[in-house]
Amino acid sequence: MKHTDEYYMELAIEEANKAGSIGEVPIGAIIVHDDQIISSAHNLRETSKNAVTHAELMAIQQACEKLDNWRLENTTIYVTLEPCPMCAGAILQSRIPRVVYGARDAKAGCVHSLYTLLNDARFNHECDVTEGVLAEQCGQLLTDFFRELRARKKEKKRLRKLAELQDEL
Amino acid sequence: MKHTDEYYMELAIEEANKAGSIGEVPIGAIIVHDDQIISSAHNLRETSKNAVTHAELMAIQQACEKLDNWRLENTTIYVTLEPCPMCAGAILQSRIPRVVYGARDAKAGCVHSLYTLLNDARFNHECDVTEGVLAEQCGQLLTDFFRELRARKKEKKRLRKLAELQDEL
Repeated sequence: MKHTDEYYMELAIEEANKAGSIGEVPIGAIIVHDDQIISSAHNLRETSKNAVTHAELMAIQQACEKLDNWRLENTTIYVTLEPCPMCAGAILQSRIPRVVYGARDAKAGCVHSLYTLLNDARFNHECDVTEGVLAEQCGQLLTDFFRELRARKKEKKRLRKLAELQDEL
Repeated sequence: MKHTDEYYMELAIEEANKAGSIGEVPIGAIIVHDDQIISSAHNLRETSKNAVTHAELMAIQQACEKLDNWRLENTTIYVTLEPCPMCAGAILQSRIPRVVYGARDAKAGCVHSLYTLLNDARFNHECDVTEGVLAEQCGQLLTDFFRELRARKKEKKRLRKLAELQDEL
């Protein structure tokens, strides 16, 4: 039985939640090969202290290992947020034929927002792209995460000021 | 003593040669931090069967480990060929301030040739880019590699045809 894009995006959202639960920006990705999940990953940049540990890039690395091939033929990558230039580039490098993403990233998205890297005939690969699958849920995750982050920062600042005032008294 | 760009590019070329000697497309990269080499890598896509094992991307990963930080401040990356979208994106993600490359890549280069990803004010990072350092040497490596590859393929084809003819006799 073939699963729907929504089914797989739900799993990518679960991955994103794993990132959020450890203080990482909640972005998740999974790669499906012949209707089987072959890899799943979530953003780990702060934890790993490694700039390239975005969800998509790690999912691609795992998938290459799994298939023992740098060409990820017959695969679809599901990712909660529109890929950045690095991850869009990694998708091209690994020849993933189909890309499904949730929310657009107006600041760094390179599939529709700032560039359309996955559909440039000058590269040696182009992708079939579906956007907007569970977009609202995927975007809400990020909105909530950054709202909480701002609130925590504000609270921290308030407590610091309070401590300073107490010191002065 | 501060070394010149040519000095470091020579070392990137040595890395590229390591790739060429094992049948990989000869591209090499090194990262320098405060005039110290902190990482060096060469393209390993065929050997690793992993689409993301480009010289720059691996050098960036190693440098993050070395500095224990995803931000590669005060670093310069030297790479023999103009970075592809994935590697240009990884350079942006790791906030490398300065990029020096050798030859242009008219087919996939994303620093000057197809895009200027490292100098787009919409991203949260821009790089100081120097191109053309030892460009001829860097490009010649690739020209020689692909010429040999074609010659080997042609010879293989010739031998196959010869074997077929012998079978027919």
